[in-house]
Amino acid sequence: MPIGYIETNRIELWNRRAARERGSVAMTSHRICFLPAGQHGEIEAGTTLREAARLLGVGIETICGGQSVCGKCKVRVLEGPQPEHGISSSGAHVSPPTPDEQRYTGRRPLRDGERLSCQARVQGDVVIYVPEESRVDRPIILKATSDRSIEIAPMLHKHYVRPAPPSMADPRGDWERLAAALDAHFALRQLRIDPFALRQLPTALRAGKGAVTATVWDGREVIRVEAGYSERAYGLAVDLGTTTVAAHLCDVATGEVLASSATINPQVAHGEDVMNRIASSNGPNRLEAMQRLVVDAVGGLARETATQASITPLDIAEVVLVANTAMHHIFLGLDVQALGIVPFTPAVSGALDFKARDVGLAILPSANVHLLPIQAAFVGGDNVAVLIAEEPHLGDEVQLIIDIGTNAELLLGNRNRLLSASCPTGPALEGACIKFGTRATPGAIEKVRIDPATEAVRFRVIGNPRWSTRVEPGALQARGLCGSAILETVAEMFRAGIIDRTGCIRNGGGSPRVRPCAEGGYEFVVAWAEQTAIGVDITVTQEDIRAIQLAKAALYTGGQLLLRRFGIARPDRVVLAGAFGSVIDVQRALWLGMFPDCGIENVRAAGNAAGDGARIALLNRHKRAEAERMARQVEYVELTAEPGFMDSFVDATHLPHATDHFPSIADGWLAQRE
Amino acid sequence: MPIGYIETNRIELWNRRAARERGSVAMTSHRICFLPAGQHGEIEAGTTLREAARLLGVGIETICGGQSVCGKCKVRVLEGPQPEHGISSSGAHVSPPTPDEQRYTGRRPLRDGERLSCQARVQGDVVIYVPEESRVDRPIILKATSDRSIEIAPMLHKHYVRPAPPSMADPRGDWERLAAALDAHFALRQLRIDPFALRQLPTALRAGKGAVTATVWDGREVIRVEAGYSERAYGLAVDLGTTTVAAHLCDVATGEVLASSATINPQVAHGEDVMNRIASSNGPNRLEAMQRLVVDAVGGLARETATQASITPLDIAEVVLVANTAMHHIFLGLDVQALGIVPFTPAVSGALDFKARDVGLAILPSANVHLLPIQAAFVGGDNVAVLIAEEPHLGDEVQLIIDIGTNAELLLGNRNRLLSASCPTGPALEGACIKFGTRATPGAIEKVRIDPATEAVRFRVIGNPRWSTRVEPGALQARGLCGSAILETVAEMFRAGIIDRTGCIRNGGGSPRVRPCAEGGYEFVVAWAEQTAIGVDITVTQEDIRAIQLAKAALYTGGQLLLRRFGIARPDRVVLAGAFGSVIDVQRALWLGMFPDCGIENVRAAGNAAGDGARIALLNRHKRAEAERMARQVEYVELTAEPGFMDSFVDATHLPHATDHFPSIADGWLAQRE
Repeated sequence: MPIGYIETNRIELWNRRAARERGSVAMTSHRICFLPAGQHGEIEAGTTLREAARLLGVGIETICGGQSVCGKCKVRVLEGPQPEHGISSSGAHVSPPTPDEQRYTGRRPLRDGERLSCQARVQGDVVIYVPEESRVDRPIILKATSDRSIEIAPMLHKHYVRPAPPSMADPRGDWERLAAALDAHFALRQLRIDPFALRQLPTALRAGKGAVTATVWDGREVIRVEAGYSERAYGLAVDLGTTTVAAHLCDVATGEVLASSATINPQVAHGEDVMNRIASSNGPNRLEAMQRLVVDAVGGLARETATQASITPLDIAEVVLVANTAMHHIFLGLDVQALGIVPFTPAVSGALDFKARDVGLAILPSANVHLLPIQAAFVGGDNVAVLIAEEPHLGDEVQLIIDIGTNAELLLGNRNRLLSASCPTGPALEGACIKFGTRATPGAIEKVRIDPATEAVRFRVIGNPRWSTRVEPGALQARGLCGSAILETVAEMFRAGIIDRTGCIRNGGGSPRVRPCAEGGYEFVVAWAEQTAIGVDITVTQEDIRAIQLAKAALYTGGQLLLRRFGIARPDRVVLAGAFGSVIDVQRALWLGMFPDCGIENVRAAGNAAGDGARIALLNRHKRAEAERMARQVEYVELTAEPGFMDSFVDATHLPHATDHFPSIADGWLAQRE
Repeated sequence: MPIGYIETNRIELWNRRAARERGSVAMTSHRICFLPAGQHGEIEAGTTLREAARLLGVGIETICGGQSVCGKCKVRVLEGPQPEHGISSSGAHVSPPTPDEQRYTGRRPLRDGERLSCQARVQGDVVIYVPEESRVDRPIILKATSDRSIEIAPMLHKHYVRPAPPSMADPRGDWERLAAALDAHFALRQLRIDPFALRQLPTALRAGKGAVTATVWDGREVIRVEAGYSERAYGLAVDLGTTTVAAHLCDVATGEVLASSATINPQVAHGEDVMNRIASSNGPNRLEAMQRLVVDAVGGLARETATQASITPLDIAEVVLVANTAMHHIFLGLDVQALGIVPFTPAVSGALDFKARDVGLAILPSANVHLLPIQAAFVGGDNVAVLIAEEPHLGDEVQLIIDIGTNAELLLGNRNRLLSASCPTGPALEGACIKFGTRATPGAIEKVRIDPATEAVRFRVIGNPRWSTRVEPGALQARGLCGSAILETVAEMFRAGIIDRTGCIRNGGGSPRVRPCAEGGYEFVVAWAEQTAIGVDITVTQEDIRAIQLAKAALYTGGQLLLRRFGIARPDRVVLAGAFGSVIDVQRALWLGMFPDCGIENVRAAGNAAGDGARIALLNRHKRAEAERMARQVEYVELTAEPGFMDSFVDATHLPHATDHFPSIADGWLAQRE
């Protein structure tokens, strides 16, 4: 609840007390206490429990505003003496059930001792327990992967009202009568109405026999009007990536995820990485075409998730979208050419709110679309989403958060200071631009092991738990190598001495798996043709290894330069975010020196933190403000402008020694083969 | 200028003075006085004249905000002693011209003694004259038909700025840098930007080599960004009538009308009157089709007027539209079915602001469209426009304002009280549903005279100043009777005794002009076939006379019932608004008893007052607030619910006696034939 609102109530309470003390109001008053938080005060006899709660700053839910329809405001009247609150309370200290309350048969049945707080009135000292489901801004556990809980404080609220009926004596329009009713029952002042919602109003009033449910955004705009009583409000959290678009449909009042879906960003046909997309968006028609592709992709996910949840896309009344800067701009139809050239200028960096119809997104036309702020041309709203999901700014521990996508974004810091940077890792870590690279779908090789002594290889594919050595040659039907498997193969080749520290494949041992490659240099066979579904040997080439070396060098250099800026040698913790970060083999990534080595026990996978951040921002409006504030506080470091960048980068292309910097590399196995 | 703004400046001035008096600021200060209004005060040496003006609450125009580009802020430094202001001033009391000022060669050349107030600085006591063209909120004479002047205080302002250039060190987006520049130079805080304007920004910045002109709406939203310097801002005032749509393209900073155009409302194909339109809009697809028709008609006028003024529709950055309630609703796509049945409920009655794109109006997509508030289902925004144009609420005189369109709206009152009502006059007064009725276009008969003694008829047509009796029979090529001619014919027939007080055509005289009519009853020949372009006699039938009687009875009854409510016998003045009100022959309208007779000298035609009101609201934002206030204060009188309505109406269908109520009817001519 905003501070201002509580303050207003306190002033009102204070005024009433003052009036009573002056003797101008002769009323009996009683002590009342609300549990579990313990707010208490003196309240005039006859006040409803809900009004008493409001006056004391206790938020109780309601949709119907006191008409015994929604049951959201139910509370428990605690019986018997409550000495710890100084109150001896009993049921008789509250008015008996009203006829409306007795008739109530909604989806939240009243159990023993429970009352609708909009009906029950104070008539003696009393202690009231507000159950969690009736509380405004109650916390829920958002993520299974962490212990963090998130307070539900959505932008959208639904309000059921029955405006004054029209009459010859009252020339006001439907909207003016609805606005007056929303003001009277829910203290919503200075409301606007979206023209699309206005169009729904006359029909909804008629169909609802005079009663409607208004969906109010941010306490200031009616964005939807439905006939009669309607309870649930839906929002969509979208993570718009360069390669993948994912969406979660949520009930914004409960935080529940009702459906999820993902699709390939259809722009991949116009290039795998951000720079290609920028080039493909040069010119107004081409920009519009690229915009159309992503907007329609998001619209498709809206339709799909809505269908899963048995609603329609027109029920989706808010969207929070996180994306890197280029995707963010293209989604909005903003020129991206300046993003591709020095000094890499975005058209806008702050958070944005606009109507779904203004980008042609096929959901409720008056729905608000919120875009999280961006930090810089290559550190976008997706990274800000990671920030509000992981919250490094709230702790003392210095975290290095690495979000590996087609680009990698780094965050380093704690409550005192936060740095960010962007590393062009290239698409190799996602299995793209790799000879036998493939997306992480069933049949893709995901795990590779090489015996350092015999150079024997075994592997596993997605969708089958058995190693290749335990099945018939044709059983696994491997289709290619996904990103994590390429990384593992290179790490295992390094440990087995098949490649040296410069990444060159050694052709000394006469192994049948090492052979000249058509593209130049040598290649290493991971799977023989008879083990595959594609009928040819699946190999890792010298070029593939170089691509992995460049990617890991970029990541490592980025981390090192940020640490230097921050003034420390290593972080307390490394957090790997993003889909790749979740499947990566941490031990092997450390062997390759992908990120500063702070010990394997201090590396944590955070799952899809950007997607989680989008959900958090969808469910909690205060987190949007926090995101905006933090995006401005984070110091962006342009790595290529840092002194020594190029030297560090070139050094980092080498595979690491076992040194103080790389405690994860066992001296043993390196010594053994050197 | 809003009070709050002046107050802020005064506080700033006061703080500076206080600081100086406390000795914390050691500065020389000088007396300065601004003419013609005479604001004066002490200003620190070195302050620019424009800043001094701002501190003293003197509004001086600027577009470039002090960059010597626009020349809008020029002032005259008055030489020599100015004893009446207690100041002995000379040019030396102001700093010499700056290099920027010397280089200034804009469209407002500096004449002798003139300076750019953004460049010249105070260095002695001085008197400054602010010429009218440099003043903010300066008044202009809006209407040739009255002496009223209107203060120009538009919603749109243009601001030329050069935001900080992008750099690697500044990760802010283009918009954040533009917003900072607008804040720094024009004190525009908390600005938003429309997504369509945001799309223009990166390209405009590049094309303008870092300089852009931002169009700001209501001091809070950037709705357009143009490359480089651009001065004029355009708005369209639209009067959307049931039959005619008219538009005026204005320069909102000068009030100048640059082009005007009008067209037939294409919905006339779906019925002549409002009730037919409501019936034709029943059902979502039909409503959308009807909306499309009017929106495209307004879009067509936008294109036409823009072409006349050598701009494009995308230059039109604001629209004020006035319309009756049904047209208002259909333009917005609002269901109108409730307007057609008791209790005649509008969907919305307050003023509305929305984006042009949200109704599909083909002008600047981010342009604001303002709809004036409506008073009731049959007293629309067009009547509110008449109100703010005629301003009966500002005077003591009790005015009866009659706006005759397809419906007639009445306003009665003065500064103490205002009543409104609506009369269903039908389309007869516009020449529709009349046997030989036609629109008021060239060839239509507009004047008719009948000699009471001989029953000889003469007439004139639109586009020819000669009477039919002065030319060859075939010379005038009459095509039909326009509304005012039908009214005149009936009045002349009444005076000549051809019809009696019940409106029946007397067939006693054996005149060749009176003959049986195919449709029943008799008809009266106004023009013989050889005088026409249509080859048949143009007549007025008994049915036509009945239609006029019903129309005038409705008008008269409405006026009488309002007078009774107001508690007076007759108004001080009758004002006839609307196209028909301007061409009507007042003498003959009085003979027919069309409105309460307060003497012909007290009847005034106000021209297209609704259109004038739309222009006023376009040019002056304060008038919009006044319209909203007044629309709520006017008491709407539902005539059909008034006691005695039906009796009054039936009585009023008769043509009047010469009585106290009808002094304009000469006893003489009535006596002569009775």
